[in-house]
Amino acid sequence: MKENKVGTYSFVAEPFHVDFTGRLFMGVLGNHLLNCAGFHATERGFGMAELNESNYTWVLSRLAIELEDMPAQYEEFSVDTWVENVYRLFTDRNFAIYGKDGKVYGYARSVWAMINMDTRKPADLLSLHGGDIVDYIETEKACPIEKPGRIKVSSCMPVRSMDVYYSDIDINGHVNSIKYIEHVLDLFSKDWYAGHVIRRFEMAYVAESYSGDTLSFFREENEDGTYDIEVRKNVGGENPEGEVVCRSKLKFDNK
Amino acid sequence: MKENKVGTYSFVAEPFHVDFTGRLFMGVLGNHLLNCAGFHATERGFGMAELNESNYTWVLSRLAIELEDMPAQYEEFSVDTWVENVYRLFTDRNFAIYGKDGKVYGYARSVWAMINMDTRKPADLLSLHGGDIVDYIETEKACPIEKPGRIKVSSCMPVRSMDVYYSDIDINGHVNSIKYIEHVLDLFSKDWYAGHVIRRFEMAYVAESYSGDTLSFFREENEDGTYDIEVRKNVGGENPEGEVVCRSKLKFDNK
Repeated sequence: MKENKVGTYSFVAEPFHVDFTGRLFMGVLGNHLLNCAGFHATERGFGMAELNESNYTWVLSRLAIELEDMPAQYEEFSVDTWVENVYRLFTDRNFAIYGKDGKVYGYARSVWAMINMDTRKPADLLSLHGGDIVDYIETEKACPIEKPGRIKVSSCMPVRSMDVYYSDIDINGHVNSIKYIEHVLDLFSKDWYAGHVIRRFEMAYVAESYSGDTLSFFREENEDGTYDIEVRKNVGGENPEGEVVCRSKLKFDNK
Repeated sequence: MKENKVGTYSFVAEPFHVDFTGRLFMGVLGNHLLNCAGFHATERGFGMAELNESNYTWVLSRLAIELEDMPAQYEEFSVDTWVENVYRLFTDRNFAIYGKDGKVYGYARSVWAMINMDTRKPADLLSLHGGDIVDYIETEKACPIEKPGRIKVSSCMPVRSMDVYYSDIDINGHVNSIKYIEHVLDLFSKDWYAGHVIRRFEMAYVAESYSGDTLSFFREENEDGTYDIEVRKNVGGENPEGEVVCRSKLKFDNK
């Protein structure tokens, strides 16, 4: 396994996983990427199941996906994933998304922390399994997209509010990382997507939200045409500003 | 292929596809079943891609799923599917869902029509490909659950209304069949699911809904403890009753 630092996993774009333009939903791609991260970590002894036994779990902190194109319905595609770097409290995991004939759809970057499930405190990655994790760092493979950046939203008028429902909630009782992607992308209309494609999508996961929470979405357009979105929970009442749950940045191109 | 009338397909319950109890979401199972229907039909020359070329498409009319249990996170399971009957305008397709060691999770029944995509009129299944489809009827395999029944909802007070968003819409421009399942199940709270499991789920698909539509959900509890739900689009205004999109019946058991 240490020889083979890059994991490769194959997928097909299923009918209910493509949007009205016939291209894979970004949330579905995100789900595949996170699954690949899980497969790759598990195969190397750092998977959720192993960690949960010792009371630790991986937490996704940042995700950035940049695409030239997106798989079409029924198309086969594959995802390469590898660990680019390991720091004391974070690790950088990258992805490359390929079509059947080696066509490059795009790349993704993610940043993960590990926490103790009781204390919710971060674990020292470099001391885990005697520092084993650094043996899996892949230094050769390029991920030619920018790292996730800072996202700042100053708008105080939500463009949408929604309650958290049953289908949003994962096994940890949190709104799952993929559902935030779907809800953020739903802030743009079908007409908008008829004329635009997502070139780059970024998400910064800040805090968890739960059943019973109300999520408010704040959106602003930047001078360069990108959009920044902030999701806050339970805005109003005792805590008028609510609490930031996640932030997203979207770069669209005209079709 | 005519020898092998039952198709078998394997899956694993992915982390983002299980609910807070750690069991597969019903909508995800529904997605897998419909994919199996697609695989099975395609392998026998009756798939969407082949049909679309000749301007026809399959339309799901009814789905009923009855389960003793649901796969847990990371569990492998498989789906058998076969054609039970073919009539002039409808075909009955069944499913069996098994665990790794032959454990039976449950069964499902579905009813499909085929329509001409231009005229939206139903096609005569018995004359398609020279009546070839009847050669695939499997008469031996049992599907020991009741057929989908009639669902009648008289409530005129919606329990929820929601706009159709980008992530609801499939390649045909319709709200996809799986999203209705998710939205219907979201009418029940996380607390409800903490104490109840879905024993049987039924859906009757009546009409399509589109981007820009507003969906209203009407729910009533029957004397036997089952719930009937009707989804109508664009209730109010010129057409106070709106138009029925689908109806669902849910039977829960206490945990």
